[in-house]
Amino acid sequence: MAGSSIGTIFKLTTFGESHGIAIGGIIDGVPSNFKLDMELIQNELDRRRPGQSVIVTQRKESDTVQILSGIFEGKTTGAPIGFIIQNDDQRSNDYSHIKDSFRPSHSDYTYEKKYGHRDYRGGGRSSARETACRVVAGAIAKQFLHSQNISIQAFVDQVGAIRLTPEEISTIKYNTIESNPVRCPISSKAEEMEKLIREVRKEGDTIGGCVRCEIRGVPIGLGEPVFDRLNADLGKAMLSINAAKGFEYGSGFQGVELRGSQHNDVFLEDGTTLTNHSGGIQGGISNGMPIYFRVAFKPVATIIQDQDSIDKDGNKVVVTGKGRHDSCVVPRAVPIVESMASIILLDFVLRNNARI
Amino acid sequence: MAGSSIGTIFKLTTFGESHGIAIGGIIDGVPSNFKLDMELIQNELDRRRPGQSVIVTQRKESDTVQILSGIFEGKTTGAPIGFIIQNDDQRSNDYSHIKDSFRPSHSDYTYEKKYGHRDYRGGGRSSARETACRVVAGAIAKQFLHSQNISIQAFVDQVGAIRLTPEEISTIKYNTIESNPVRCPISSKAEEMEKLIREVRKEGDTIGGCVRCEIRGVPIGLGEPVFDRLNADLGKAMLSINAAKGFEYGSGFQGVELRGSQHNDVFLEDGTTLTNHSGGIQGGISNGMPIYFRVAFKPVATIIQDQDSIDKDGNKVVVTGKGRHDSCVVPRAVPIVESMASIILLDFVLRNNARI
Amino acid sequence: MAGSSIGTIFKLTTFGESHGIAIGGIIDGVPSNFKLDMELIQNELDRRRPGQSVIVTQRKESDTVQILSGIFEGKTTGAPIGFIIQNDDQRSNDYSHIKDSFRPSHSDYTYEKKYGHRDYRGGGRSSARETACRVVAGAIAKQFLHSQNISIQAFVDQVGAIRLTPEEISTIKYNTIESNPVRCPISSKAEEMEKLIREVRKEGDTIGGCVRCEIRGVPIGLGEPVFDRLNADLGKAMLSINAAKGFEYGSGFQGVELRGSQHNDVFLEDGTTLTNHSGGIQGGISNGMPIYFRVAFKPVATIIQDQDSIDKDGNKVVVTGKGRHDSCVVPRAVPIVESMASIILLDFVLRNNARI
Amino acid sequence: MAGSSIGTIFKLTTFGESHGIAIGGIIDGVPSNFKLDMELIQNELDRRRPGQSVIVTQRKESDTVQILSGIFEGKTTGAPIGFIIQNDDQRSNDYSHIKDSFRPSHSDYTYEKKYGHRDYRGGGRSSARETACRVVAGAIAKQFLHSQNISIQAFVDQVGAIRLTPEEISTIKYNTIESNPVRCPISSKAEEMEKLIREVRKEGDTIGGCVRCEIRGVPIGLGEPVFDRLNADLGKAMLSINAAKGFEYGSGFQGVELRGSQHNDVFLEDGTTLTNHSGGIQGGISNGMPIYFRVAFKPVATIIQDQDSIDKDGNKVVVTGKGRHDSCVVPRAVPIVESMASIILLDFVLRNNARI
Repeated sequence: MAGSSIGTIFKLTTFGESHGIAIGGIIDGVPSNFKLDMELIQNELDRRRPGQSVIVTQRKESDTVQILSGIFEGKTTGAPIGFIIQNDDQRSNDYSHIKDSFRPSHSDYTYEKKYGHRDYRGGGRSSARETACRVVAGAIAKQFLHSQNISIQAFVDQVGAIRLTPEEISTIKYNTIESNPVRCPISSKAEEMEKLIREVRKEGDTIGGCVRCEIRGVPIGLGEPVFDRLNADLGKAMLSINAAKGFEYGSGFQGVELRGSQHNDVFLEDGTTLTNHSGGIQGGISNGMPIYFRVAFKPVATIIQDQDSIDKDGNKVVVTGKGRHDSCVVPRAVPIVESMASIILLDFVLRNNARI
Repeated sequence: MAGSSIGTIFKLTTFGESHGIAIGGIIDGVPSNFKLDMELIQNELDRRRPGQSVIVTQRKESDTVQILSGIFEGKTTGAPIGFIIQNDDQRSNDYSHIKDSFRPSHSDYTYEKKYGHRDYRGGGRSSARETACRVVAGAIAKQFLHSQNISIQAFVDQVGAIRLTPEEISTIKYNTIESNPVRCPISSKAEEMEKLIREVRKEGDTIGGCVRCEIRGVPIGLGEPVFDRLNADLGKAMLSINAAKGFEYGSGFQGVELRGSQHNDVFLEDGTTLTNHSGGIQGGISNGMPIYFRVAFKPVATIIQDQDSIDKDGNKVVVTGKGRHDSCVVPRAVPIVESMASIILLDFVLRNNARI
Repeated sequence: MAGSSIGTIFKLTTFGESHGIAIGGIIDGVPSNFKLDMELIQNELDRRRPGQSVIVTQRKESDTVQILSGIFEGKTTGAPIGFIIQNDDQRSNDYSHIKDSFRPSHSDYTYEKKYGHRDYRGGGRSSARETACRVVAGAIAKQFLHSQNISIQAFVDQVGAIRLTPEEISTIKYNTIESNPVRCPISSKAEEMEKLIREVRKEGDTIGGCVRCEIRGVPIGLGEPVFDRLNADLGKAMLSINAAKGFEYGSGFQGVELRGSQHNDVFLEDGTTLTNHSGGIQGGISNGMPIYFRVAFKPVATIIQDQDSIDKDGNKVVVTGKGRHDSCVVPRAVPIVESMASIILLDFVLRNNARI
Repeated sequence: MAGSSIGTIFKLTTFGESHGIAIGGIIDGVPSNFKLDMELIQNELDRRRPGQSVIVTQRKESDTVQILSGIFEGKTTGAPIGFIIQNDDQRSNDYSHIKDSFRPSHSDYTYEKKYGHRDYRGGGRSSARETACRVVAGAIAKQFLHSQNISIQAFVDQVGAIRLTPEEISTIKYNTIESNPVRCPISSKAEEMEKLIREVRKEGDTIGGCVRCEIRGVPIGLGEPVFDRLNADLGKAMLSINAAKGFEYGSGFQGVELRGSQHNDVFLEDGTTLTNHSGGIQGGISNGMPIYFRVAFKPVATIIQDQDSIDKDGNKVVVTGKGRHDSCVVPRAVPIVESMASIILLDFVLRNNARI
């Protein structure tokens, strides 16, 4: 199972299954001599953590990160940062109901077929628990970006069919995002979304949604032409998050309906543009305008309902959902989206500095 | 300017500007002892070529590929395939009108700021001409995939607001795709789309659209967990195509409105699924069902209208569009989408074979 | 500080400083469904461990590896193997004598200048302690190689000027290597070497030496042409070991004195060769004959003598050696050389299988 | 056949067989806005070219490089530099004598077994002709390094058993290197070497030798700890050159006989060292002192003598050498060694600049 790394200079590699001893990672290529705020790292982890509000899963995971290397007297040494997050003891849990069965729209089936041997407890390697490691790296990357005056802010802009309008988005204040459990900065819409999530949960069901991310203060010139465009690597990073089904930046899918004369962003004398359909990226390279993109997340596959399925031998079985799961994953996806964006942005900042 | 390579084992690296001597590339990691059909490679290039129909640009580019290495007596040797495509002589053209100006929503501005020195003739390195190299590699990858019974087929499913319905998509026949210049397999919609493109062109304007791609015969197990998910790498590849603004696979952005109980794909006894909201990928790994995804392309930025802009010194200028350009890029994007998908798929086939 | 990874498909990434909480690593690309013997991993670590014999350092490090992921019910799952080795508590130690000084021929100076901030306790990231992580990965790789009937065996063939003759090397038995603390399979030479090391140690001094490695059962075809030649990647791996100063394979440096007519290896009818000056590698690719190479290790820089040096401000200081250090590093380098060779070999086995 | 790329930021990828249409390469990651001297590139190629003196092969290859992209108005644009070198027409040559036979100590056998299909004309992909592409990239890298005051100079210090003494090396003047066909800066030794090469050639035989390379003006801090040490990547680059059998830097293999107290390089107050056994590298990172290393090259395998061998079917055959070949490859290896060193050094300069 390769594919556990992301980034080229600032590079994160992760390990760990949901029900193993610990998950963790190594961050290589960390710029040296930089004072890191450990509390900020734990804060970001807490934003991702289960059990933080009534509308997300009530599983109890402490998610405490332990940094093992790369920091000395509070500052980065340039050495790789190794870290682990212990898994709480769940040996007592019973997984016999899913051991030999394939839960619909989970990766049980594909892992079994690809690897021939699989840790069937929880999601194993495919569990969203792995994203905690991304948040550790993202929280570190974010601090470097802040020192460069680059800010990254995500929020929920859609749950089910309830979606923020462009007008609403143009008025949002970032400091309201954390004021409600949905992490939607328009309070009226947040209430509707929360109501919908509560209804869905009562039925033991789940619902999808979208996260919008905005990046400000980006210098001109981040991103490489051709394959490693800033938008392409942001897209890959977002699509690597569990349950992600789509990515669009700037005018996105709706932009295809416009004429070129409407879509083109006219330059002002200072090099900024009147409109920003480009989403801050032209030819794969940041142009200094705000970058924004959206990520679509499907309704999570774990539902508290009986579902028809099959076992390893192709026999029909009924899979019974149980446990404490998220009815809507997008509020908890917000810090993950920010983390992945931070990792990619910092990597491109460093790549851009690799000059003579 | 790094970022000119894609793939890990089957790897394409490209070079070349639109108005230089030639563009070209190197394909490394080509499996050996395989008979390649050279005509198929040229055929795919011809599908991408300007001037092939009345609704695309009438620029004349011959786009003849010359293979320089890696093939001996008609079969691959396992050595890298180097190739070039000569650029037709365009020295006589006059680019003084854009030399010091930044065309709106082009990469003139970002290249100038990032590199400090730029080939201002046409799009330079950012020109879509570069995609011809991708088609060469894609046409080679496709032949290997065909030998594994994997087929890749793209078509236009949206131009402006004209879009195929799910019902229409369920009835399409691939052999009708090339029967009209739009490359849309539903002829009534194709006519509407063509009409729209002709109107737009008369106004010297452009319009966006979407390409849908379907991959069949994929073995179970392609893709790696966590970061190098099949969907994530397909997404990056598509978002690296000029003018791409969005990517969605399976249920995509619309899937967020569904409940988990609706969205989950129930297994049948043979391991296939009743529905395919997953788009053939679960946990980042192919499950044997057809893979499908969509790519959004913005209206191209080059319009035959006067546009306000600025020059290098920040002075206001008027940029006058001229020349022969595409009013709608999506018909020509079809072979490019197929090519990028072929490169990614073959790379994952090889990665999946890297076992003991 | 990038550069913490080695391998392309079977890839090791390490972290950790000598006096931090723990060192560790992540091994990605592990083939799945393979039964690993945990005891063999610990055995290899014990071969590298300080304190194992009278002629190496008497520092006490327990070097117990804890595997955190990637193995379920005793078999690999294909998920990355994360592991840590706790550092014994050494907080009480006093490093004030080297905090601001640069020990001669250590990396204190280069780390300080490159990173601007440095963990001065022991060698920090540059400590040979990091090689314990390589041994964990090597011991895992070795088990996969054994399943393919590939064996890797290193031994000491030189300490100071005492060196095995070609005749002696042609008669050695691998099972005698561990019978003496020098790990030299010719007992008379081993005694001489041990005597020399004891003398050197009495003087508080150190002495260099060479490790020879032999790899048998290698299938034809491992290695890639041009840059990733098997010999080139083996060379890099060996030169990445602390204190390594040289690498030669096959006829090596002595071979330059031969004529081509003497050096060429004549083929026998079964494809083997009469002689093996090639060292089992032709054109960067294994030819099925035994691979052999040598690695030169300088005398370690830490000596128990007073040495003139400078501090951070360029003032003259005297650095006083103290503590328990290796007088000759090569006996403990033997399992490290085997480990690095195992990692590289397995990576090339997997690369070679990435075919259609 | 993967493995055709070297470098991480400044990256060279090559293609081409000795008897195909052309060889060539792509250099990605070229810093932009830099004036390149094209004549210097061709000069370096001419140093590598066959036929330049009486003691190397008299084959006539023009080796004219054609740059296809990445340079505009004489300066780099940051876009990848694509280039080709046409092969002179050799279709009339007859290779039937080696088509089905394996020449001793060539890669005929390993390529045949690995790939199942092989371009048997000349050395195909394994021909030293491929190194011309390295010289192009090296000549470009060298110009960037010169702008940073880093100089790279190689010369022959051994042919057969004739070797420069340390005293001779301490007195050499670089401007004498090109004054004789051996490229050895001590004229008396150069004469002896030339005499030996002429004798060997008369016998239709070949002889090995060593190249020494010295790099001056290196800033402190190039190289990464652990795996990507400057010495390790230099070693890999050198060992990837055809016929290379060994690499040593600083005190090298002879250094193992020294005591630590002799070997340690004492710091002077300005951070330089009294001696330089370290070879300018401590802990894998440059310390500002001159870097020096040696590369051993075996006698080339092509001899003008009859040799016993086998054919594809394992039948005994006699391979007859013919044509014009190098009797000693090391004079022509000098610019190749410099080129590989230049590529690696520039890559590390760029990596080192990838900071915040």
